Amino acid sequence: MSLGRPWWQEARASLQRLLSAQEGVIRDDQRLKEQVIIPLDQVTMQLPAQVGDYTDFYASKEHATNVGRMFRPGGQALNPNWVHQPIAYHGRASSVVISGTDVRRPLGQILPHKEAEHPIMAPSRALDFELEMAAFVGKGNALGESISVEDAWGQHVFGLVLMNDWSARDIQKWEYQPLGPFNGKNWATQISPWIVTTDALEPFLTEAPLQSPPVLPYMQEETGRSMPDINLQVDVIPEGVAQASCVSKSNLKYMYWTFSQMIAHHTLGGCNLRPGDLLGTGTVSGPEPHQCGSLLELTHGGTKPLSLDQGSMSGQLGYLRDGDEVVLRGFCAKEGLPRIGFGECRGKVLPPRRQ
Amino acid sequence: MSLGRPWWQEARASLQRLLSAQEGVIRDDQRLKEQVIIPLDQVTMQLPAQVGDYTDFYASKEHATNVGRMFRPGGQALNPNWVHQPIAYHGRASSVVISGTDVRRPLGQILPHKEAEHPIMAPSRALDFELEMAAFVGKGNALGESISVEDAWGQHVFGLVLMNDWSARDIQKWEYQPLGPFNGKNWATQISPWIVTTDALEPFLTEAPLQSPPVLPYMQEETGRSMPDINLQVDVIPEGVAQASCVSKSNLKYMYWTFSQMIAHHTLGGCNLRPGDLLGTGTVSGPEPHQCGSLLELTHGGTKPLSLDQGSMSGQLGYLRDGDEVVLRGFCAKEGLPRIGFGECRGKVLPPRRQ
Ligand SMILES: [Ca+2]
Ligand SMILES: [Ca+2]
Ligand SMILES: [Mg+2]
Ligand SMILES: [Mg+2]
Ligand code: NI
Repeated sequence: MSLGRPWWQEARASLQRLLSAQEGVIRDDQRLKEQVIIPLDQVTMQLPAQVGDYTDFYASKEHATNVGRMFRPGGQALNPNWVHQPIAYHGRASSVVISGTDVRRPLGQILPHKEAEHPIMAPSRALDFELEMAAFVGKGNALGESISVEDAWGQHVFGLVLMNDWSARDIQKWEYQPLGPFNGKNWATQISPWIVTTDALEPFLTEAPLQSPPVLPYMQEETGRSMPDINLQVDVIPEGVAQASCVSKSNLKYMYWTFSQMIAHHTLGGCNLRPGDLLGTGTVSGPEPHQCGSLLELTHGGTKPLSLDQGSMSGQLGYLRDGDEVVLRGFCAKEGLPRIGFGECRGKVLPPRRQ
Repeated sequence: MSLGRPWWQEARASLQRLLSAQEGVIRDDQRLKEQVIIPLDQVTMQLPAQVGDYTDFYASKEHATNVGRMFRPGGQALNPNWVHQPIAYHGRASSVVISGTDVRRPLGQILPHKEAEHPIMAPSRALDFELEMAAFVGKGNALGESISVEDAWGQHVFGLVLMNDWSARDIQKWEYQPLGPFNGKNWATQISPWIVTTDALEPFLTEAPLQSPPVLPYMQEETGRSMPDINLQVDVIPEGVAQASCVSKSNLKYMYWTFSQMIAHHTLGGCNLRPGDLLGTGTVSGPEPHQCGSLLELTHGGTKPLSLDQGSMSGQLGYLRDGDEVVLRGFCAKEGLPRIGFGECRGKVLPPRRQ
């Protein structure tokens, strides 16, 4: 990953050649085949890289507006800085886990009701997912140097994964002023197991939304603004129910800020990115209500439960209950090209630790 | 570090024995002595551990109040959550550097004047230090588990270092709502080179400030609240001047939140700490004006420059200029005990990267 794109391309081409039907090296060697091709259900997936630092952006205008309305009713939905820079926070690298890891409902400080003046310590009552995608950094930059908006995507992003930024909204809401989210989000961030490289995504790049007002020159993309067109979906499998319900469909192409801009901004002051660093987009919400990437938005802060499209026990979903399972999926599809899948990012909510 | 306190104590006792005047193993072996005892000026210090995650708290009531007054004039100086939990943010691990590393003034988005509606991109004009101390985690905890307030200091803190959380106030001020500090602080965090272990600090523990209102049970320290009494000092050596000026004297004992409470809160929701993780206290400001640990506070946001106590070129210090050098020092002293020094945390401001 640290070597740079020419090496990634060479490795990709070699693998594609070795796996093609025209090539006999693996195809005709039964013993080698058994050694290198392993059925997915016999594999335990691991994190694809050691995550040195994990940064989470806030790059969907729809998401930032929706959250601002709910967290700051009466105030400005979108802070004045939001249209000028890709807002982000440093997340917790130690708790980045792979798909299939179950996550424990966190205990935390929460306000028991709206008028409460004193917090209690209790298991979160507002457990949420966040539908995100994240870039793995390939080649990094030295401390004190920056990465230009032109180089960022092509030279520094190794590829993308799905990401569920598990969030406890009640903990987050009480703690986040003035230094941002902490215990509300540091107990689990989950990613899909394989990285889809920028070369594989190249044919699916599509124009990014127009930015108004114009951004500062260091984030202007002279050769066009683009993000991959990646269809995203969130399924919830409620506790005790066999069937999954789709609760959101969205697309990465809705992001207001591109990965190129996120990286140019992240490194503007000289912050060094290292190979294996993870850069989340923030929740990928689209313009339509069913395209929201979190239950916070989909259920209006838990007040308007979703009606699930199958016969579950209650048929309603507010925030997540113990035993509920969340599955993110993503794929690229375009006429004349093979479909590209991101696999899944799957996790079940375990009951809280005994106090 | 990951093994736990009994092993740290054993290693410490062995080293003390080997270095004592009564012990001949090193003393009487000239060749061995030359190999293992190296003059400090011939040594290049390195980070004492690989920092997996770096967290910075906000544990001084005086500092939080001072900053709140300046960043939110007219609003509440202290947010309602502040007295109920040790507020913190996740910092950037990649840019933690050792004493002696010079730091480059960051470029960033700033508002050019108070009434400006649009930011410019420019080198920070409000470069600051933050006088802090930080704990290195020794033994960690598993994801989903927590560390009790009773065990935190004694079983999980390996020891302490000095820390300068370099900050660009203008970048920070414009970016920090709603997700906290990002580019304002991720370009350099500097620590002193050796870790003073909890065993060495034991005789210097002193009572921590009374907390009112009482904290939730998971942060109540039944056997007494304590923090080490560590004298702290900030010197600035202005560009072109040979002599250092002391601009602040403070003490770790003023912290409202103890390390035990920070760790109990950090892990309450199951966040895993790993050996080598760094936990900063936040700026150590004391109750007196000259005990403030940042220029933001000492100069009232840069508006009231300090008069330095020596004949520098201007004799005044607002925010830091290129070439200014900042040196943090710390020591424990108590009648009848050897003095314990933290060495220094030293860094010079380099001019910004050419645009
Ligand atoms: Ca997020
Ligand atoms: Ca700080
Ligand atoms: Mg998370
Ligand atoms: Mg810093
Ligand atoms: Ni009260």
